[in-house]
Amino acid sequence: MNMNDIIIKKRDGGVLSKEEIQYFVTGYTKGEIPDYQASALLMAIYFKGMDKEETYALTTAMRDSGDIVDLSAIKGVKVDKHSTGGVGDKTTLIVGPMAAACGVPIAKMSGRGLGFTGGTVDKMESIPGFKTTLEEQEFMDLVNKNGISVIGQTGSIAPADKKIYALRDVTGTVENLSLITSSVMSKKLASGSDAIVLDVKCGDGAFMENLEEARQLGQLMVEIGNSDGKRTIAVITDMDQPLGRAVGNSLEVIEAIETLKGNGPADITRLSETLAGIMVYAGGKADSPEQGHEMAKESLRNGSALEKMRLFIQGQGGDPAILEDTTLFPQHTFAVEVTSPSDGFIEKIRARQVGVASQHAGAGRATKDDVIDMAAGIYLNKKVGDAVLEGELLATVYGNDEAKAAAAAKDLEAAYEISDTKTEPRPLIKEIIGL
Amino acid sequence: MNMNDIIIKKRDGGVLSKEEIQYFVTGYTKGEIPDYQASALLMAIYFKGMDKEETYALTTAMRDSGDIVDLSAIKGVKVDKHSTGGVGDKTTLIVGPMAAACGVPIAKMSGRGLGFTGGTVDKMESIPGFKTTLEEQEFMDLVNKNGISVIGQTGSIAPADKKIYALRDVTGTVENLSLITSSVMSKKLASGSDAIVLDVKCGDGAFMENLEEARQLGQLMVEIGNSDGKRTIAVITDMDQPLGRAVGNSLEVIEAIETLKGNGPADITRLSETLAGIMVYAGGKADSPEQGHEMAKESLRNGSALEKMRLFIQGQGGDPAILEDTTLFPQHTFAVEVTSPSDGFIEKIRARQVGVASQHAGAGRATKDDVIDMAAGIYLNKKVGDAVLEGELLATVYGNDEAKAAAAAKDLEAAYEISDTKTEPRPLIKEIIGL
Repeated sequence: MNMNDIIIKKRDGGVLSKEEIQYFVTGYTKGEIPDYQASALLMAIYFKGMDKEETYALTTAMRDSGDIVDLSAIKGVKVDKHSTGGVGDKTTLIVGPMAAACGVPIAKMSGRGLGFTGGTVDKMESIPGFKTTLEEQEFMDLVNKNGISVIGQTGSIAPADKKIYALRDVTGTVENLSLITSSVMSKKLASGSDAIVLDVKCGDGAFMENLEEARQLGQLMVEIGNSDGKRTIAVITDMDQPLGRAVGNSLEVIEAIETLKGNGPADITRLSETLAGIMVYAGGKADSPEQGHEMAKESLRNGSALEKMRLFIQGQGGDPAILEDTTLFPQHTFAVEVTSPSDGFIEKIRARQVGVASQHAGAGRATKDDVIDMAAGIYLNKKVGDAVLEGELLATVYGNDEAKAAAAAKDLEAAYEISDTKTEPRPLIKEIIGL
Repeated sequence: MNMNDIIIKKRDGGVLSKEEIQYFVTGYTKGEIPDYQASALLMAIYFKGMDKEETYALTTAMRDSGDIVDLSAIKGVKVDKHSTGGVGDKTTLIVGPMAAACGVPIAKMSGRGLGFTGGTVDKMESIPGFKTTLEEQEFMDLVNKNGISVIGQTGSIAPADKKIYALRDVTGTVENLSLITSSVMSKKLASGSDAIVLDVKCGDGAFMENLEEARQLGQLMVEIGNSDGKRTIAVITDMDQPLGRAVGNSLEVIEAIETLKGNGPADITRLSETLAGIMVYAGGKADSPEQGHEMAKESLRNGSALEKMRLFIQGQGGDPAILEDTTLFPQHTFAVEVTSPSDGFIEKIRARQVGVASQHAGAGRATKDDVIDMAAGIYLNKKVGDAVLEGELLATVYGNDEAKAAAAAKDLEAAYEISDTKTEPRPLIKEIIGL
């Protein structure tokens, strides 16, 4: 086999064989195929696409490029959850304890973030003492004991994805359904859970800006998961304005805790109930999605989800006192307020722009060596549909660098759009695929 | 400027600015832009194309990446000639002396070959003693004295093309009109001649397999040359069967000499008269292309073109006795004959397949470090339209490696197609653009 021939075959619209895809993934991961041939192939895939079989072959080749986690020592149907990424998305920290409270074992590996805020692992590290690196045995013991553990994904999971994603990021080849799918699903399939619930974000702050694209992505990911024998369900949800009110690492953990206490923003609460309900159903702890939904809601009402959060934090060395005392989190030294330039109603809050502001405040990384300011971030006092008066508080930037906070406040101002008439926020849950 | 943004702009069908194209070419030549971003951009260009302005900007940026030759010390209108490459194409060695005999100064830089046979420079080196590397002053003195000199192109001419071409060759991005045009024309525009005659090959053994593509390529190259103030004319010619009967380095020089003596194959003779006639006209030595054509024909009839060949060879240290005694060329030790499997007429001789056979016999390089067997090659005893009897000689492979020659004979057999009815060869000269 010859890489140039494979590039030309795809360029000319051909369907790559399983062997050709394997040859590419293995050769590229080992460094035998150079970056410049890989990027040419990725661009040809961008233009010519891949069918379902090719996407599945790519996903499994990437899955097999590293370790495959064996979670069989954990009892029960393990359910994984993944979000394609949005602004203010802290749902893992909520639905994990909720599903665990309903009896579904959560043994999850999460990534770090590059971009607007940290990833779930970064957010958890804002909890004093919390360890995100555990030995495999300790991780499985914690799941068996507490029903939940979430650790950082190691480099040995799907190294091909790591290398290919880094290349896509600098060669204009991120936005392709098959490449996005293989990147997400290779890691999910290697992580050992039995079922996968996907939150496919759709809108201004997401990979997929319109519903049709998000639907195609969800459909393909569900097909790939099912092809591999893992029950896979995708929920398409709105990401046109940020999720909840908090964006930033410790700010999001605090909002997650508030939600577990039953005091969270309505959108986050509703989304968490939906996702957790599907996880409970997929984990075989409910006979129907509706029953799962009721059980998930009840876990918030009766405090069992909050109790799981306490065990989760304690189990990984964190200080559970943060559940009652948020001053134990890293603190900000600067707060910059953004006020409304006019009377009216919030028409739009551009999620991507809020993400940029959050990153500028210090909550995200531009390169993988950047250090995150755990206290930095944004609180949205007003959301879409809210009435506002001239001079009234729209949002607040927090951080430990005055200049950065001021710059972020400028970004944030530009994210808001105010109009004379009241707009209803877009429906949060758009579609569920694979149920 | 940012290379990833430029890739995405082209990927999404945008028109790149002169500055963006310059940024890419300069950055890539200097090694500041990595291969993997360059190949992603080239693949995006493959799919989305470039308009005339972009192609001109790419060509001039590549031209300006190295030295620009100043031929002003040579008197008269210097005319360059370039072929897009075919099998058995030895016309430079014929039309150079013909045009020079008609008073057009030929100061040409030629390339080496990678592929079926050597390039013009390689072919000339089969002449004992012939030097293809000369000091600039010596080169110009020879043109002023003899009317002709042809030397090897130095690495300092359009180094961007060298680097980009090498990348295209291994990333499935060769076959694009704008990329082919910029590669050819950047070198031509840097080589200092005043006018350019292009032989655009069309057919099985060429870049462009059909007339429409060849026409588009010719048209674009003519426009780019004219944009730069160089009179440019493109002749589209057939390359469906090899040109002439000889394929290989010394074999082609011998055929060129025979043609200059008036004993060449009909196709080579006709093509050379056409190209040389246009060169004579473009060089201002004839008032019309028709007059140029007559003058070119006369240069064969009266021996003046052969005399120029003698001066040319002598001027560069070669032994002019080869004009009369071909045994002075490197000799072959093996000859393998290919005979006809049946009675009939030659329907087709697949040029590309003959090229492959020639390369296998040792006449071409697979990698730039391969050493060419100057005596290796192929002689086509039968050409399209010829009658043949079962067992009659079709073609002969020559070389110095018995196994290679035998393998080449197998390739060659597969190049011939024989039918019951007589086929007329396709017209040799298809179109002239820019006259």
